[in-house]
Amino acid sequence: MTPVRKLVLLGTGLIGGSFALALKRVRLVQHVVGVGRNPDNLARAIELNVIDVATADAAEAVVDADLVLLATPVGQMGALMQRIAPHLAPGCLVTDGGSTKQDVCALFRENLPEHLAWCVPGHPIAGSDLSGAAAAQYGLFEGRRVVLTPLAETDPASTARIEALWQQCGAVVHTMQAAQHDGVFAAVSHMPHLLAFAYMNTVLARADADTCLEFAASGFRDFTRIAGSHPDMWRDIALANRSALLQDLKSCAAQLQQVIALVEAEDRDGMTDYFAQASKARVAWGNRKR
Amino acid sequence: MTPVRKLVLLGTGLIGGSFALALKRVRLVQHVVGVGRNPDNLARAIELNVIDVATADAAEAVVDADLVLLATPVGQMGALMQRIAPHLAPGCLVTDGGSTKQDVCALFRENLPEHLAWCVPGHPIAGSDLSGAAAAQYGLFEGRRVVLTPLAETDPASTARIEALWQQCGAVVHTMQAAQHDGVFAAVSHMPHLLAFAYMNTVLARADADTCLEFAASGFRDFTRIAGSHPDMWRDIALANRSALLQDLKSCAAQLQQVIALVEAEDRDGMTDYFAQASKARVAWGNRKR
Repeated sequence: MTPVRKLVLLGTGLIGGSFALALKRVRLVQHVVGVGRNPDNLARAIELNVIDVATADAAEAVVDADLVLLATPVGQMGALMQRIAPHLAPGCLVTDGGSTKQDVCALFRENLPEHLAWCVPGHPIAGSDLSGAAAAQYGLFEGRRVVLTPLAETDPASTARIEALWQQCGAVVHTMQAAQHDGVFAAVSHMPHLLAFAYMNTVLARADADTCLEFAASGFRDFTRIAGSHPDMWRDIALANRSALLQDLKSCAAQLQQVIALVEAEDRDGMTDYFAQASKARVAWGNRKR
Repeated sequence: MTPVRKLVLLGTGLIGGSFALALKRVRLVQHVVGVGRNPDNLARAIELNVIDVATADAAEAVVDADLVLLATPVGQMGALMQRIAPHLAPGCLVTDGGSTKQDVCALFRENLPEHLAWCVPGHPIAGSDLSGAAAAQYGLFEGRRVVLTPLAETDPASTARIEALWQQCGAVVHTMQAAQHDGVFAAVSHMPHLLAFAYMNTVLARADADTCLEFAASGFRDFTRIAGSHPDMWRDIALANRSALLQDLKSCAAQLQQVIALVEAEDRDGMTDYFAQASKARVAWGNRKR
């Protein structure tokens, strides 16, 4: 497999840094340029050998690159694409690590219309509470899933190359439509985050909230772990995947009304059936993952 | 401290068995009788030295006892109290491990009206996915909380004795009103279980549920862990703590509508504030627990 000659990370944090490290380990990248706005973070990235060179100038960085990874929050990607567009060599692959895909696909179309054959939108499923270049690690993508959502205009050879690189990082790669991706992740990631925020605020609204939190135990701890997530990041994700997310939140609100009705009616059989359906599916899921 | 002469476990499972083991370790119990309906489980409890003697007859078992722990599901406690009432010696302490307290207090009043001075309703906060005598362990209550909700009729000396015994098991003991207890646990335990069931069923109702579950990752895993709980047990808890729980579920439904309205309106500042309130509280809680 041909190594990447010059990889440019637009955003030198956990995802970008771990991608660079993983490719370095298997000798599939020769030169890594890190772009970022935080000089301390970039200095740390060089020190840790995550990147070879640092710059704040995305346009200058992508000259001669054969692979560009957009690994910033999705909100910054449009401006970065616009900035690099005039400087990208034909054939330079551009991919991203954003956790919503329909909006990123639209950004590619809007900002790199001449370059779409080499654009491969992607989403590595490898979150962490940590961030920054210092959190980058070789094995982050080992056994993790990466979803690619190529555009109609994407050259299949571009997709195949990005897929192969992720596989070399240890990831299991799936390809699907951007809309399907966003529906799935609204359901299993975005909706539960917003539910966890809503639940947490329900407890906080109680007059005895402090006492409640004092007696909260392991069930609470796990259920609310994602409620500790970064507010701005989740505001952006909620806005980016708004329509799929709203559909799920409304569907969940209806399910919640059903639970309330069952409890209100003291419907023993109805509750048993309802709880058992959820419990059975969750137990099966847990067993499948092991 | 005077040891318990004869401890009777009505229900020889995780909670009862671990209580007996913890008292045995500090030599605060001389003789343990296990009562249960499953002969295999009782045989295992003897084999593991959790109990000394086993019987299926609760009435016979409590004769001469100085401490009885009701450690069955709450649904079985009323019948057991009725059964033992004529056989309890005056002064024999009776406590329980039920996770709802207003209903258990009512059962004490109804079934042991002559014995209330020696009845101390309690709730050890030490859940586990495991059950049965084989799951019993010495250290289960180490550093865990136990809430006691004495009746107006309970002799303070009875409460003090039960408190001291739990403390010898390593537990941190709190005393509060049964209604306060039920409100707190509706908020931090019962409500999240029902929300987790509702969320799980929301995902299952999607046409692409299988694909969703395939891509579900660590956030989903933690958020839904309690959705794998036992349906019958949670139906009983929901019914036992119905009015406090309904209040919380309705309050959460209102919070969820607020989230939907914020996302629908693309209210960036509103979302940031809403998410930040939850996130800040959750992070503070996590730090406090360490």
